[in-house]
Amino acid sequence: MSRVYNRVALIGLGLIASSIAHAVKWKDLAGEVVGHARSRETRETALEIGLVSEVFETAAEAVKDADLVVLCVPVGAMADVAAEVAPHLAPGATVTDVGSVKQAVIEAVGQHLPEGVHFIPGHPLAGTEHSGPRSGFATLFVNRWWLLTPPEGTDPEAVQRLRSFIEAMGANVDQMEAGHHDLVLAVTSHTPHLIAYTMVGVADHLRRVTHEEVIKYSASGFRDFTRIAASDPTMWRDVFLTNKDATLDILGRFTEELFVLQRAIRMGDGDALFDYFTRTRAIRRGIIEAGQDTDAPDFGRGAPKSDA
Amino acid sequence: MSRVYNRVALIGLGLIASSIAHAVKWKDLAGEVVGHARSRETRETALEIGLVSEVFETAAEAVKDADLVVLCVPVGAMADVAAEVAPHLAPGATVTDVGSVKQAVIEAVGQHLPEGVHFIPGHPLAGTEHSGPRSGFATLFVNRWWLLTPPEGTDPEAVQRLRSFIEAMGANVDQMEAGHHDLVLAVTSHTPHLIAYTMVGVADHLRRVTHEEVIKYSASGFRDFTRIAASDPTMWRDVFLTNKDATLDILGRFTEELFVLQRAIRMGDGDALFDYFTRTRAIRRGIIEAGQDTDAPDFGRGAPKSDA
Repeated sequence: MSRVYNRVALIGLGLIASSIAHAVKWKDLAGEVVGHARSRETRETALEIGLVSEVFETAAEAVKDADLVVLCVPVGAMADVAAEVAPHLAPGATVTDVGSVKQAVIEAVGQHLPEGVHFIPGHPLAGTEHSGPRSGFATLFVNRWWLLTPPEGTDPEAVQRLRSFIEAMGANVDQMEAGHHDLVLAVTSHTPHLIAYTMVGVADHLRRVTHEEVIKYSASGFRDFTRIAASDPTMWRDVFLTNKDATLDILGRFTEELFVLQRAIRMGDGDALFDYFTRTRAIRRGIIEAGQDTDAPDFGRGAPKSDA
Repeated sequence: MSRVYNRVALIGLGLIASSIAHAVKWKDLAGEVVGHARSRETRETALEIGLVSEVFETAAEAVKDADLVVLCVPVGAMADVAAEVAPHLAPGATVTDVGSVKQAVIEAVGQHLPEGVHFIPGHPLAGTEHSGPRSGFATLFVNRWWLLTPPEGTDPEAVQRLRSFIEAMGANVDQMEAGHHDLVLAVTSHTPHLIAYTMVGVADHLRRVTHEEVIKYSASGFRDFTRIAASDPTMWRDVFLTNKDATLDILGRFTEELFVLQRAIRMGDGDALFDYFTRTRAIRRGIIEAGQDTDAPDFGRGAPKSDA
């Protein structure tokens, strides 16, 4: 793979940034990767494990001479970072981000960037429940979607160059309008995360069921919720604060729907429950066919193979 | 492993029964395994793939001479099956079941069984989103919990014999009171399943987000919900109808809690959100430490390994 950028600057060095760093090295996509993180410990770790060739104490220093700047900080920190780096960006540089919300990032970042810099907001739909500079790995983005929401009038060549970079890391790129992105993600990610956090919170509060029992018997469904609810608290706080309208909209639909099922349970309406559960099963098949999950049974994960 | 029973009769030949059949063969736990399923197709499949040495058209025939009878039918079908097999049970036989709800099964089954038969209700906390006679595998129960809720006065020797059988399949056995079981499972399994079904239903209904997009971008959290919501509709209908009180109790707590978080989003209370999400993260660690899941990142499941 030929190099797509000369110098990539990663602002923030958590899970996504460290995965980008690994992927760039794996595919040789840039001349060099430099970075900045607010915490000294993170900066030292990044150097120690060779994530980047150079780290800087300030984001302003880190972006100098970079032709690609990737903002990998929580959505709530985007505005400050953008204001800080704006005067130091190289003319013609591309600035992108990896935030889970796009309208708020465009408002926060767009206003600060100078003419001649290409701002192409992005969102990789990839992650794990781990965070920090040691959590990244080169294949995080392979076969995952990476959504771009370039505002109207963005230079097509700059977009194409960023797409090549992302696709070379193994991801599939789709472009859409920022508001649509935020609604789609409210359905597929933000509301499911809030619900998972809530269910785990309920289990934690419950006094008649001991904490130990909830953990012991988690394999029966609850475990998958705890995985989702173990994601980075700062990131998720910012997602809900900045994608408020879409999340509240979907939450409203969710509680309506939940009340319908709750009523069916209370009234003993087995037919309604059966029909509902049959419909939702079909969606699962669609996801497997779309290659976004495997059909392999997962609830027995970690069980040793039989010698039968 | 020495054989624990002479003749095991499996009533119902779905995921759990077929996994028991494989595990019994794997560990040589019984002289023979016979079975019954209502559908001719299932019976033919069970013979064809060698799950059982003999299948019977009626449950009554299947239980003859069996010293262990395992009722592997949906909870709602337990009463009829128990009434049918009761006159044909061998004296001293043990009858157990694998239903996800225990109080309702005890009411449904207990009344029919004759004196001299040991009824020991059970519930393996294991499963996948697949069903049917071809979905079973020998290691399904390895390192999973299998809960027993023997009523007071149950013969301790019969309980010990069943425990040995279950433990030989690789499971860990716990005993508890049936009502407590139903509450614990309402928290760790039944309510999470209902919530997952609901969220998948919401996504399916949403008209502004296309069905295709929900499926395409499911890796961002929603995917784990669809896995849970793909489980057998009949089984889950019966769970909610028969564990109604505990499920409604936990659902009430869930919506209360959800409204607290929803209000925090609406009011922009970032501190409340952050604190909540930090607490739930700790529960995840407990589950990993308890050996009920691995710490390996899972959201990138199916991604090929890098050669980096």
